[in-house]
Amino acid sequence: MYSSLLLEKLREALRCLPGVGPKSAQRMVFHLLQRDRDGGIRLAQALTQAMLEINHCSDCRTFTEQPICSICTNPRRQKSGQICIVESPADIYAIEQTAQFDGRYFVLMGHLSPLDGIGPDEIGLKRLQERLKNEKIEEVILGTNPTVEGEATANYIAEICAHYGVMASRIAHGVPVGSELEMVDGITLSHSLAGRHPIKL
Amino acid sequence: MYSSLLLEKLREALRCLPGVGPKSAQRMVFHLLQRDRDGGIRLAQALTQAMLEINHCSDCRTFTEQPICSICTNPRRQKSGQICIVESPADIYAIEQTAQFDGRYFVLMGHLSPLDGIGPDEIGLKRLQERLKNEKIEEVILGTNPTVEGEATANYIAEICAHYGVMASRIAHGVPVGSELEMVDGITLSHSLAGRHPIKL
Repeated sequence: MYSSLLLEKLREALRCLPGVGPKSAQRMVFHLLQRDRDGGIRLAQALTQAMLEINHCSDCRTFTEQPICSICTNPRRQKSGQICIVESPADIYAIEQTAQFDGRYFVLMGHLSPLDGIGPDEIGLKRLQERLKNEKIEEVILGTNPTVEGEATANYIAEICAHYGVMASRIAHGVPVGSELEMVDGITLSHSLAGRHPIKL
Repeated sequence: MYSSLLLEKLREALRCLPGVGPKSAQRMVFHLLQRDRDGGIRLAQALTQAMLEINHCSDCRTFTEQPICSICTNPRRQKSGQICIVESPADIYAIEQTAQFDGRYFVLMGHLSPLDGIGPDEIGLKRLQERLKNEKIEEVILGTNPTVEGEATANYIAEICAHYGVMASRIAHGVPVGSELEMVDGITLSHSLAGRHPIKL
């Protein structure tokens, strides 16, 4: 038994956030009530707006409140003719932070997983095929995760690209920069050996 | 640059929660958008309600949306004649979970800290004095934290209690149950020696 029903309700509601258990939910509630009520109100407004208004870009399927996202509508990026295929919008963030890629994206929102009933339609490959057919795309970079499902999905999409005569490339697997060779797992190491390239002097 | 302003706004707003940095805020945003939009909406509603409607109980100063909280209005708890003084509403939770205390509470919402300008008025001691004067209180249990400030606050309140002829007691300090003696710090251990009590057979 406790003194406030609303407080209990908020504590329960906070549990929908990943990584928030009963103790941290309680800490959050008391922090907001004691020190940051304005922040709590702002958070509530941002939540409502985001949950109701954010949808998928009809070109690349990432999250956006516009019909087409700002990356897809950027003329400079349209000119590059490259499309990077990733599993989730969070991957776009990661790639954007490298500032190395100037093309557009296509977000699968998952990967092929026939056992879970996730086939080509569920990850939007119909839309991708339309784009391969109608747009002038020079290269598809397969940026799916280096997992079994990610590899299978990459191979499947590479076959589609071949069908449309578009070059498909896969991001390199290998030893992460700054790591120690003896700590790297065997599969990564063999990928890194197979993917070796001559040193240009 | 990214595809959605609302998403950025939500990511920033989530940072008001304690323990949430940029990475976990991003994880939360994507989790809610991809898997739990209803949860996000519920959270927004619970937040708004709690931030706007929760106030302090006018008897014990804990958080509640009622004028007086359900613990203070509980007749069984009123009968006990005990008041436990704690620093924060979270401490009430902790004590309630032991199910060992059947009295009422008084929440200081902090502790005496003259250097920060927190004096007796700021921690509500005026209201406590009113209660000591007007209510039939048999015992005040000082449950402030075992820190320098907590001890000072406890002593200060004990003097007020003496003035009103009310018995004041302090929660026991000592070796936590399940710990190992060699790992316990010296001050705790000396408290535990000083507070020893005869074994009843």
